[in-house]
Amino acid sequence: MDGAQLPDLAQRFETVRQRSLALAATLSDEDCGAQSMPDASPVKWHLAHTSWFFETFVLERSEDDFAPFHPAFRILFNSYYNGIGERHPRAQRGLLTRPAMHEVRAYRANVDARVARLLAQRPCDAALAALVALGIEHEQQHQELMLTDVLHLLAQNPLLPACFAGLPALAPDVAAMGWIACDGGVASIGHQGEGFCFDNELPRHRVFVEPFELASRLVTNAQYLTFINAGGYRDPSLWLAEGWDAITRLQLAQPLYWRQEQAGRWREFTLHGEQPLVPDAPVTHLSLFEAAACAQFMGARLPTEAEWELGARSEARGDLLQLFGQCWQWTSSSYAPYPGYACAPGALGEYNGKFMLNQYVLRGSSRATPAGHARPSYRNFFPASARWQFSGVRLAR
Amino acid sequence: MDGAQLPDLAQRFETVRQRSLALAATLSDEDCGAQSMPDASPVKWHLAHTSWFFETFVLERSEDDFAPFHPAFRILFNSYYNGIGERHPRAQRGLLTRPAMHEVRAYRANVDARVARLLAQRPCDAALAALVALGIEHEQQHQELMLTDVLHLLAQNPLLPACFAGLPALAPDVAAMGWIACDGGVASIGHQGEGFCFDNELPRHRVFVEPFELASRLVTNAQYLTFINAGGYRDPSLWLAEGWDAITRLQLAQPLYWRQEQAGRWREFTLHGEQPLVPDAPVTHLSLFEAAACAQFMGARLPTEAEWELGARSEARGDLLQLFGQCWQWTSSSYAPYPGYACAPGALGEYNGKFMLNQYVLRGSSRATPAGHARPSYRNFFPASARWQFSGVRLAR
Amino acid sequence: MDGAQLPDLAQRFETVRQRSLALAATLSDEDCGAQSMPDASPVKWHLAHTSWFFETFVLERSEDDFAPFHPAFRILFNSYYNGIGERHPRAQRGLLTRPAMHEVRAYRANVDARVARLLAQRPCDAALAALVALGIEHEQQHQELMLTDVLHLLAQNPLLPACFAGLPALAPDVAAMGWIACDGGVASIGHQGEGFCFDNELPRHRVFVEPFELASRLVTNAQYLTFINAGGYRDPSLWLAEGWDAITRLQLAQPLYWRQEQAGRWREFTLHGEQPLVPDAPVTHLSLFEAAACAQFMGARLPTEAEWELGARSEARGDLLQLFGQCWQWTSSSYAPYPGYACAPGALGEYNGKFMLNQYVLRGSSRATPAGHARPSYRNFFPASARWQFSGVRLAR
Amino acid sequence: MDGAQLPDLAQRFETVRQRSLALAATLSDEDCGAQSMPDASPVKWHLAHTSWFFETFVLERSEDDFAPFHPAFRILFNSYYNGIGERHPRAQRGLLTRPAMHEVRAYRANVDARVARLLAQRPCDAALAALVALGIEHEQQHQELMLTDVLHLLAQNPLLPACFAGLPALAPDVAAMGWIACDGGVASIGHQGEGFCFDNELPRHRVFVEPFELASRLVTNAQYLTFINAGGYRDPSLWLAEGWDAITRLQLAQPLYWRQEQAGRWREFTLHGEQPLVPDAPVTHLSLFEAAACAQFMGARLPTEAEWELGARSEARGDLLQLFGQCWQWTSSSYAPYPGYACAPGALGEYNGKFMLNQYVLRGSSRATPAGHARPSYRNFFPASARWQFSGVRLAR
Repeated sequence: MDGAQLPDLAQRFETVRQRSLALAATLSDEDCGAQSMPDASPVKWHLAHTSWFFETFVLERSEDDFAPFHPAFRILFNSYYNGIGERHPRAQRGLLTRPAMHEVRAYRANVDARVARLLAQRPCDAALAALVALGIEHEQQHQELMLTDVLHLLAQNPLLPACFAGLPALAPDVAAMGWIACDGGVASIGHQGEGFCFDNELPRHRVFVEPFELASRLVTNAQYLTFINAGGYRDPSLWLAEGWDAITRLQLAQPLYWRQEQAGRWREFTLHGEQPLVPDAPVTHLSLFEAAACAQFMGARLPTEAEWELGARSEARGDLLQLFGQCWQWTSSSYAPYPGYACAPGALGEYNGKFMLNQYVLRGSSRATPAGHARPSYRNFFPASARWQFSGVRLAR
Repeated sequence: MDGAQLPDLAQRFETVRQRSLALAATLSDEDCGAQSMPDASPVKWHLAHTSWFFETFVLERSEDDFAPFHPAFRILFNSYYNGIGERHPRAQRGLLTRPAMHEVRAYRANVDARVARLLAQRPCDAALAALVALGIEHEQQHQELMLTDVLHLLAQNPLLPACFAGLPALAPDVAAMGWIACDGGVASIGHQGEGFCFDNELPRHRVFVEPFELASRLVTNAQYLTFINAGGYRDPSLWLAEGWDAITRLQLAQPLYWRQEQAGRWREFTLHGEQPLVPDAPVTHLSLFEAAACAQFMGARLPTEAEWELGARSEARGDLLQLFGQCWQWTSSSYAPYPGYACAPGALGEYNGKFMLNQYVLRGSSRATPAGHARPSYRNFFPASARWQFSGVRLAR
Repeated sequence: MDGAQLPDLAQRFETVRQRSLALAATLSDEDCGAQSMPDASPVKWHLAHTSWFFETFVLERSEDDFAPFHPAFRILFNSYYNGIGERHPRAQRGLLTRPAMHEVRAYRANVDARVARLLAQRPCDAALAALVALGIEHEQQHQELMLTDVLHLLAQNPLLPACFAGLPALAPDVAAMGWIACDGGVASIGHQGEGFCFDNELPRHRVFVEPFELASRLVTNAQYLTFINAGGYRDPSLWLAEGWDAITRLQLAQPLYWRQEQAGRWREFTLHGEQPLVPDAPVTHLSLFEAAACAQFMGARLPTEAEWELGARSEARGDLLQLFGQCWQWTSSSYAPYPGYACAPGALGEYNGKFMLNQYVLRGSSRATPAGHARPSYRNFFPASARWQFSGVRLAR
Repeated sequence: MDGAQLPDLAQRFETVRQRSLALAATLSDEDCGAQSMPDASPVKWHLAHTSWFFETFVLERSEDDFAPFHPAFRILFNSYYNGIGERHPRAQRGLLTRPAMHEVRAYRANVDARVARLLAQRPCDAALAALVALGIEHEQQHQELMLTDVLHLLAQNPLLPACFAGLPALAPDVAAMGWIACDGGVASIGHQGEGFCFDNELPRHRVFVEPFELASRLVTNAQYLTFINAGGYRDPSLWLAEGWDAITRLQLAQPLYWRQEQAGRWREFTLHGEQPLVPDAPVTHLSLFEAAACAQFMGARLPTEAEWELGARSEARGDLLQLFGQCWQWTSSSYAPYPGYACAPGALGEYNGKFMLNQYVLRGSSRATPAGHARPSYRNFFPASARWQFSGVRLAR
């Protein structure tokens, strides 16, 4: 977690902080306050929690005369840091109609000004810079969650309101899927170089892999429809046991935001409202169960995270389309510490390490990921049942 | 359900409709949109549902060129009328961030204007008048629910925000509790006379009661504290079996909004924020379980609804303080149809009849009840476990 | 709760105690040990609990040198008496594979011998006699529960095993249903005379009823089929709100033990295995929800418990067939204390009083009720959703 | 899955099948029929299911005139094979009081005779031999489960009955724990050689590991007590997030079967009843959460499954005590397919592959594992929360 150069850092801090507000600009205060499920948080809560992060891990450690913006916010906007103290129950974040959005905006402005002042006062403080850099990356993670969470909220509304008016430019045509061969042997994965990374990307270490192939692009909606139409959701032999239980119990038969308007005519709810399904776009909002079943149906499998990373760094990486910026790509790797992994001391050690169980790694990035946030060694992770993220499939074999 | 005289009705309609908006005037849009539990509804939903009621049962039946304000609102704001059609799941009312409050206000204005026009056009239409009168009483019921529900919502917030700034005038001193004797024999209960009543207050019918006594006033906070301090919440012999299970499972040891700040110093969360407990005020926010256990502890019992009504109509009624305007008073009577009760035909028949099971009758009215809404024959009803209403205890023996 | 004459009592004690064992004679130890749901108990548990009842309320109070048969049984076989002390969790009664059936039989034999000795030693002890008489009636209640509970258990088994081999004699033909008129006015209900009754049948007291009519016999399977075939389970206007929620959530479309073998051919699981549905037999194993919906469909209603009892005591009682010995008959009356009702002091006061909430009264008796156990004032009670009892419908209007 | 030599196989079949019955010899029919939780099965069900396995995968495939012993058993005793057809709900296995134990014994005898006949008739049928060998190993897995499941059942009984009378010989003294160094580099794991293995042990493949150390013996009860007494269950920094949630929600503060009789005096419920805790014995019945927290507390970690297997095959293996026969040893490896893993075709492919998600690998074997069943490449697996297995901890660093 190396700090960036400080002048850049102050600029980057301001840019990223403003982008969070910009994401909420077209949402009403009510949109920002509601919580659609315990896994998702209100936009307002994200805006406050990211400020809490800077207040707790930057201001409190660095300001001589530190005083919290509001004592109750220390608890209300702590996500999961036992090392910091108590916290508000996660499932009740949507009941916090106070503080109001304008108070959260004031909280943000206060934290912004104080962090900016610190950065100006201590241009050579590498520890400070490292913490601010971490806070910036943390804020970017929450920017993506703001989008996934508000999309889930609006999807519960029968009016199917759009988060953002207007449609994005159509995705370019995608070539037919091919297989790109990658070498086996002992190779290294994990972050290298000077730039920022999270602690879970370290230490860089050696692994042994057999030769493998990765698909040249992501599985498309059209390909996934073939899986559906062939009865994929009714054939237990394609599914992991826990996945079969889940789709049977919840009566699932398509990706999260799909709706069959009439026989064969599908629509998908997006940040721009409900739209006709785009056949060539990558299928999105799949659980790991669905991703693995579809791969099984297509005679392939999911890559391990080592395969994905080695492919993304290989000479063939130019042939691997849609590595970033479309959908996070489920891997078959459970989220586990790298050999020699060590948590940071104190509460920041809770950032990643304690979640390394019963979650699976996704690689790449999605169209909701802030520009510049991801990299080949980046490890995203969610439970296998999660569907509300922008998650898709790249096949391996 | 007789109609009132029409000129009065139009004026009353306007007054009552405006009061609903006035109740929400100090709340933010977020406060109005959130839902703290499935039993409670957002204020915004109440504002929309009461308009839906007029639209569905007045405008649709009377306007020649009826068109709904918004087709989707027919489903979104239907509470429980199967006869009308589908409805939005109750537990998800808090996720309806759209329509926004300003849209709900526009909905209300539209309905108001159309109802007013109808009333002006048909001054002699008794059926129309009866439906508008029903809608007015329905709106008043929801005015009380707006207060009970937003109080519950704000009580979940660690900031303990006040719904209304400022404190109400202190309650006057209350005389010592005495016992007022009432005659037994065959007597009639149920609504009589020309004024409005709900169908569940009819038909007026004869009952036989033994001679009984009612307490001259409600049980106070100080009396309830005696029950608590004597170990009332730890003695199963005082409790109904289902009540004992509930307080054990939920670890209850005081009324819903009480908090013991330090030994012996209690505070109560109210619409005006958290306040020191007022010893002489009626204890409020009790379940029937708590009401019955406290009565048992005090060597008394709860009245039946017939006893309550007969007392409230007896010559001794002048000696019975706090019959109205403080707390709803739990009775031991399950909510059941009166002999000869008949539902209205059609969807309006769902107003009351289908709920006559596993609920218990409360009589009187509370400080949250709109002026003029209650009467001696009025039957309020809730499940025995409900605590978020303004519910208290009048003893009988 | 008057005691019977003692020589009769000793004989009656022995007869009733032996009958409990006789009911279990064709069941395996495994059949006797399993528990199909928290509401039902294993047969072995019933056999032990009824012995616990005599041990706790007769032996412990009367033996000079009382020592429990087994200290742990005091807790294991206490059903719900907080006044006695701790108890084993109800839902885990089926996990008590020890004590084994032979140990429970030894427990029964020990208690039997000690009670017999006491009765022989104290022929004039009225208090002792009253407690033994209560224990006998208690045992008879559990004899019926042994049958309802083991029927429910065996119904979960795809092999559909019969509790008892052989078929009962066919029910006699039943005349067409007629309406029997009963007078209104002030009349008395509740137990009268010298014989045994439970405390909930007292005090005898006056009620006022309007003139009413009772159906001359119970609703038959054939009549209930008409209700089903007319879409009764799909028409919300026939149902109480809580009933409609239940049948929708649980996807109910017929009585508990019915199965449609093929279109129009129904079978019913009984104590004698699965049998073709007998059209003229009373429909059984209905919830109050189903009973009330069927009554509504047939243009009638359920009787109140006062109406039922007054009918069963009226001069017209000879015209009322099937009052006893076929099915318990749901009434619309919630289970509540009679005016002036007083619990017994101590733990025996928990027998009835604490359950007087959210349960509904059934009158009559069923084919599983021991001969001589019921009477016109007898009040059985279960939650409105209960279906595993032998519960049916007598109409009123 | 190579077959053994046939004469040996027939003998081994008979020996293993008889041992299953021997394990149940001291249990009552009731003990054998009850089910203490959905994760555990009744002993009777295990006895029947293992017979179902031979009937389905051996007899049905090989007998010319195959007819099932009982048609309903095909469904009742199918565990989870969708490829075979329907199955009885897992959580209701304890309600199958029929077939009785004597019928299950008859089922076993019938299957035994028919398998023995087939083996005698086809001495050179390698496919048959492979299936019988698989069935034998499958039966041995269920022998361990019979013990873990009946131990859990008896532990629910306040009488704390012993599954087996008499105490096992005391465990020998164990030397102080040391650290055994193992080499890093590229090495192969997975089954090798001619003997039987499950498909999940294949294919043998190369992995890269860093140099590591394994503890010379398992963590003892005394060591675990140090963790408890130091407040290990109250310090969130030692726990994975999901583990901390679990121990907080379930209020766990010691291993599954431990009970603190009085301050500092602990007892443990075992197959031989409740016994004083043996300080030097390996701590058993831990979840992965507890195993990992204890390792963290001791400044170490759990081994990966590759490290465990390489250690157990290394030249230092002689220094590694208690590899087998005491407790299964949690690893930090999620249960995943080896590179190139392929399920068997058809229903047998469901044996292992579909469970490779959200489970963690345990290595070694326990004192409940049949002799000769385990080997260095053996992969046992359970969810991280499972505590009712004989699971313990070997540290790594």
